[in-house]
Amino acid sequence: MSEIADITNKLIEFRDERDWLQFHNPKDLALAISVEAGELLELFLWKQPEEANTEKIKEELADVFSFAFLLASKYDLDVKKIVLDKIKQNGEKYPVDKAKGTAKKYNEF
Amino acid sequence: MSEIADITNKLIEFRDERDWLQFHNPKDLALAISVEAGELLELFLWKQPEEANTEKIKEELADVFSFAFLLASKYDLDVKKIVLDKIKQNGEKYPVDKAKGTAKKYNEF
Amino acid sequence: MSEIADITNKLIEFRDERDWLQFHNPKDLALAISVEAGELLELFLWKQPEEANTEKIKEELADVFSFAFLLASKYDLDVKKIVLDKIKQNGEKYPVDKAKGTAKKYNEF
Amino acid sequence: MSEIADITNKLIEFRDERDWLQFHNPKDLALAISVEAGELLELFLWKQPEEANTEKIKEELADVFSFAFLLASKYDLDVKKIVLDKIKQNGEKYPVDKAKGTAKKYNEF
Repeated sequence: MSEIADITNKLIEFRDERDWLQFHNPKDLALAISVEAGELLELFLWKQPEEANTEKIKEELADVFSFAFLLASKYDLDVKKIVLDKIKQNGEKYPVDKAKGTAKKYNEF
Repeated sequence: MSEIADITNKLIEFRDERDWLQFHNPKDLALAISVEAGELLELFLWKQPEEANTEKIKEELADVFSFAFLLASKYDLDVKKIVLDKIKQNGEKYPVDKAKGTAKKYNEF
Repeated sequence: MSEIADITNKLIEFRDERDWLQFHNPKDLALAISVEAGELLELFLWKQPEEANTEKIKEELADVFSFAFLLASKYDLDVKKIVLDKIKQNGEKYPVDKAKGTAKKYNEF
Repeated sequence: MSEIADITNKLIEFRDERDWLQFHNPKDLALAISVEAGELLELFLWKQPEEANTEKIKEELADVFSFAFLLASKYDLDVKKIVLDKIKQNGEKYPVDKAKGTAKKYNEF
């Protein structure tokens, strides 16, 4: 079994032991990802980038990943495939000769 | 190489070809995760959960994963380990006998 | 009429001309605030604080305010009152002698 | 003094008593709005729209407003003006005859 399939199975097992599938519609999963992304972001609030607490980052980032894996699973998405597809797509939006060394958005080139 | 290490390497290769490491401090990566989580969430705005566009979900979820993998890599975190650790920790906060079938937060039991 | 009541009335008029009340339940309004907050945040991504585009900040911040006023109106909340109440509550969590000059959260004092 | 100027002055007084201006650059204020929008959103997670706790909504919405007023003040923006300008702009993107009764985005008409 792939590494991501293995993690996802453990998340689903945890969910099903608690009978939580009823709450896990895609909209609330997307909402959960945003909520957890906000908790992760809070660790950096008013701080320099290197001042955030690494232990708490582990926990909040794990929460982001958990709901992201569950949402991917909801749509039967292959995480590796969608990320590699997006890298390819971004390669067209951000060609090296235009994008190198700049933080501009593709519509600002 | 593990599946996640493989994905992460491709993201780092894309970043380094564009000389973007200079922008990718942990605070901006956490910020990027929040921004992408917001774009994912927008696909569900004013809609029933099943009405969101699956093609766009693939793209926005891929963006969330991309910055999440890059942030994990920044702290040398093993994604599988931090998710499994968090599942264990959540098992203590949400024991099956209290959490089954309810969406309550652990501090509301 | 108060300034905020006046703004809110104009937002409601815009909504009702388009028959959008049907979409504006409190959950989707909270979701809209998060989505707009993400678009505002994106203007600062990979940038120094002073590098963001002020014209775009006006637009995205206006969106955040619009959905926040509409959500307040949904619960018949007096914006001035809830903000002043929260200032008072924060005054107890962040007494001047402990909070002065530090970005610590109240649970870290 | 206008209602919003009055609220903003009280927020600035609270900030200055604690010597927090040093942390309140525009980027961190935008970040704070996102964090608070996430906390507001969490009140609706896994729930029907009408199930959220109104007392907590007051507090989290007050936090969103507080940082939004502070960010507006940072750029010397007149909140009423930027919201009314945005309503006008949205009127062009969402003309009544196209937008009535639909939740479609303007680029989907």
